[in-house]
Amino acid sequence: MEKPLNVAVIGGNACGPKAVARARRCAPDARITIIEQGEDVSTATCGLPYYVSGAIGNQASLVARKPDFFREVMNVEVLTRTKALAIEPKAHKIEVIDLATNQASTLDYDKLVLATGSTPVVPNIKGKDLKGVFTLTKIKDAITIRDLISWDGIKSATIIGAGLIGLEMAEAFVSRGLEVTIVEALDWVLPTLLDFEMAAYVGRHVQKKGVELVLGQLVMRFEGDEDGRVHKVITKDTEWETHLVLLAVGAKPNTELARGAGLTIGLAGGIAVDEYLQTSDPDIYAGGDCVENVNRVTQQKMLAPLGSTANKHGRVIGTNVAGGLEAFPGVFGTAIAKVFDCNVGRIGLNELQAREAGFDVVTCLVPGNEHATYYPNSREILVKLVAEKSSGRLLGGQVVGAGETAKRIDVLATALAFGATVDELANLDLAYAPPYNSALDPLHHAANVIRNKRSGYARALTPMEVKNKIERGDNFILLDVRSPGEWESRRIEVPQAKLVPLGELRKKLGTLPKDAEIVIICQASVRAYQAQRILDGADFRNVKFMDGSIAAWPYNISGTR
Amino acid sequence: MEKPLNVAVIGGNACGPKAVARARRCAPDARITIIEQGEDVSTATCGLPYYVSGAIGNQASLVARKPDFFREVMNVEVLTRTKALAIEPKAHKIEVIDLATNQASTLDYDKLVLATGSTPVVPNIKGKDLKGVFTLTKIKDAITIRDLISWDGIKSATIIGAGLIGLEMAEAFVSRGLEVTIVEALDWVLPTLLDFEMAAYVGRHVQKKGVELVLGQLVMRFEGDEDGRVHKVITKDTEWETHLVLLAVGAKPNTELARGAGLTIGLAGGIAVDEYLQTSDPDIYAGGDCVENVNRVTQQKMLAPLGSTANKHGRVIGTNVAGGLEAFPGVFGTAIAKVFDCNVGRIGLNELQAREAGFDVVTCLVPGNEHATYYPNSREILVKLVAEKSSGRLLGGQVVGAGETAKRIDVLATALAFGATVDELANLDLAYAPPYNSALDPLHHAANVIRNKRSGYARALTPMEVKNKIERGDNFILLDVRSPGEWESRRIEVPQAKLVPLGELRKKLGTLPKDAEIVIICQASVRAYQAQRILDGADFRNVKFMDGSIAAWPYNISGTR
Repeated sequence: MEKPLNVAVIGGNACGPKAVARARRCAPDARITIIEQGEDVSTATCGLPYYVSGAIGNQASLVARKPDFFREVMNVEVLTRTKALAIEPKAHKIEVIDLATNQASTLDYDKLVLATGSTPVVPNIKGKDLKGVFTLTKIKDAITIRDLISWDGIKSATIIGAGLIGLEMAEAFVSRGLEVTIVEALDWVLPTLLDFEMAAYVGRHVQKKGVELVLGQLVMRFEGDEDGRVHKVITKDTEWETHLVLLAVGAKPNTELARGAGLTIGLAGGIAVDEYLQTSDPDIYAGGDCVENVNRVTQQKMLAPLGSTANKHGRVIGTNVAGGLEAFPGVFGTAIAKVFDCNVGRIGLNELQAREAGFDVVTCLVPGNEHATYYPNSREILVKLVAEKSSGRLLGGQVVGAGETAKRIDVLATALAFGATVDELANLDLAYAPPYNSALDPLHHAANVIRNKRSGYARALTPMEVKNKIERGDNFILLDVRSPGEWESRRIEVPQAKLVPLGELRKKLGTLPKDAEIVIICQASVRAYQAQRILDGADFRNVKFMDGSIAAWPYNISGTR
Repeated sequence: MEKPLNVAVIGGNACGPKAVARARRCAPDARITIIEQGEDVSTATCGLPYYVSGAIGNQASLVARKPDFFREVMNVEVLTRTKALAIEPKAHKIEVIDLATNQASTLDYDKLVLATGSTPVVPNIKGKDLKGVFTLTKIKDAITIRDLISWDGIKSATIIGAGLIGLEMAEAFVSRGLEVTIVEALDWVLPTLLDFEMAAYVGRHVQKKGVELVLGQLVMRFEGDEDGRVHKVITKDTEWETHLVLLAVGAKPNTELARGAGLTIGLAGGIAVDEYLQTSDPDIYAGGDCVENVNRVTQQKMLAPLGSTANKHGRVIGTNVAGGLEAFPGVFGTAIAKVFDCNVGRIGLNELQAREAGFDVVTCLVPGNEHATYYPNSREILVKLVAEKSSGRLLGGQVVGAGETAKRIDVLATALAFGATVDELANLDLAYAPPYNSALDPLHHAANVIRNKRSGYARALTPMEVKNKIERGDNFILLDVRSPGEWESRRIEVPQAKLVPLGELRKKLGTLPKDAEIVIICQASVRAYQAQRILDGADFRNVKFMDGSIAAWPYNISGTR
């Protein structure tokens, strides 16, 4: 009888357990071993912010599967508290150490899976080793932080980094009654994910919830008290007291084992794998946070450390180690986060990324509602799409707001997977009934705005372009076509502003000079576009509207402490 | 100077106003006239059930745009309370009558748009003309019904037809305190939209809300009291008192004008249009409820009377009457409805439709949760996908449950638009964070179940097949692999049932005969599939699991009054 296939998996979260489960289903006779440093396997690390906030009460619910499940149901050997020290690829051996007994031993394998995950980046800031300075990556981090808040009576927290985890944790801390300050080295929140005007929307929301945003500043040092406990944060311009610091500036893939084994590491810093998630050694597969992924828009390699990707990797690897041949197509950098009452989603390339990648882009900025406005509780969303100007191909999208955004991101995720154009997006047969949507989804409207721009009907300036014109003191008319009531309640107060409600515009054409530069605004750009077409039809020569109008105007944010 | 383009639009809701608005933006100089029988244009007829329920308080919010908006902003002539009597295509003339004055006149056009909508089907039941028997299609219907409930103290309502409007109105009536009975001629609710097992899920929910379902029965007659007011419904088997009857058995396209003008009417009963929404007369376009659409799965013509489709039609027509050339790609029969606390969505072909259309199908039935179960308030959904067995191409999907279903339907809508396979669906980079989803979306799981079936790893029976085996008294083992607690709380109580919890299965293999037919169930099919693979690996020869397991078991419904 042939010797059964011998599969070893290093890493017990997300990718590893999924690979094990799939491999077992594909290869009932295989010998399968999973090696994990910690005490648990299958932990729900994405749930940690919600454990800190208290939304998840019980830490047991953060462990999806007990080791016994893998042993009894999957017939898998589970080695917890066991660290893999080195891999010998030629000998097909792994050197491991039992962390409880310090006993070293050697395991052999036919196929090896590296699911070694990632580690939070600890920036080299003086004072980073003080008590009360944390990263958040394991259940025990969350427990320590939650206990500190619950029992030590601390009053304030500082988060370094306004990325996804930073913002999720800001909500968690605020919900526990802490005063929260977020320091971000770049100029806006979620800087690698969102464009400025979308981030400004999120930033305003976070500030409204009482969070202090310190943007565009680096922390110089943390200072401690006599007990060695952090109590002060110092930037170049300012300083403040704090009782807890969370370092949330990103994660780096755990590649030490792979490097030691001579496996190729990619330019983005992760273990290099091909579409079958095979490393440079054909008997070693890798997946989850430790590998690089193909960005399906640019075809460039990127890091995408997410549980969703890790689980898909796991299935592909489980199939392939068992002798199958399944490919993983890559990712779109999809991200979503609940930031207080704002749902923040993004996918593909944002405008900056698209321009950096060399695309000639056309964008839109479309305020909308999650469902029919006449149906109760229709909350606002703001959509930005980025498309290739020449082809109309969708490159990416961002959706933020109190309303349903995940649905729109998932539609974009599906559209991007098929190289959809905005024309195709505009005619998707999306589900409509008043509790769920308007007859046209905000994505339909957004796609149509880009179509109108590509066909030359619509001409728009971005809010940033208008802001620059205002600040330069350009000679133009900022024509507000809303009602007098809307104008009174909130407007862009500059000398160039002039009110002509849309309903009166046709009658008052004579009051506007035909050769002047006119930039039209309204509440959500719909009336402004309408007005632009009226002026076009009346032979005005230099008319545009402002993308997103008042609803998306990103200024009036006091961004620094 | 050339004479400006003269566009006439018949029909003032959804498609008509959208066509007008788009035509105006594309053709600033055109003369545009809109002709509408009623007093209002742009009414939100999809909101009527919510006006009856009281969720929408104010009837004014059901009118999206006043005629003055079209006049002042759009520079469009609006003829309300005006009925088009006939079209003379050769002469490019429309005969109209002013319903206020009874004055007839003739309008001419260069391009004509028919957006004449649909009319509820009134089944030929004796007593249908009694007072208190309604259809629901206009704001005044909703007002009359709401007033009747509010002021006449009626206590019960009967709805004829368990389609979308019937179920939406059941919720509205129950929320107003009425006792509600729904009569459906076919054997399950939403019979043209859902397969039996999905409909059973919805039906159970409706019954739990106190609605009486009378399925598979025709109404013989309605009886009235001395005032000519309906007070009794009589079917073949039974009869009951009622104070209000709503006829909701469907709608038929309004094609009289088109027929009179000699335009081609299609086999599905709507006005025939090509992809540019041009009728058989090149100067006449048609859109909205009155036309036929291409079903993008089958390429057959179908009716799709929905506001979403009508609005997309309107834009296409507006472009094309103004000299552009835009195509409408067709529809997928997408539908969604809020049925009490159950969100009910469907798209493409259901299993019956796919089999009727000649496809060799593979399906799955996957209970899941809207987001990570460890995050609070994760509600249940049930997913059924239908795919082509040979290619794995997705043909359609149904999603029902208290959890978020619209998102999944919209992902399917996008996937279907690009002819996605289940392999492609399984690797979509959907948005993941615990408040929004699990690491793998229920659609990913559903796609993977179909992939497992196609690859031969998974073998399943449908609930109906298992029910048939039970009723035939087949000699098989219905192996329940849940925990003893789950078994105690709810199980399929038949002689063939046997409990072996999954964790003990490997140890107890000896208690199961290797040649027996074994059908495995659990709560949601995940453990059952796992168990199937364990038995496969142990050389059991005739093992399957039941699709959807206990969570999707569609029986124990008392379906008749």
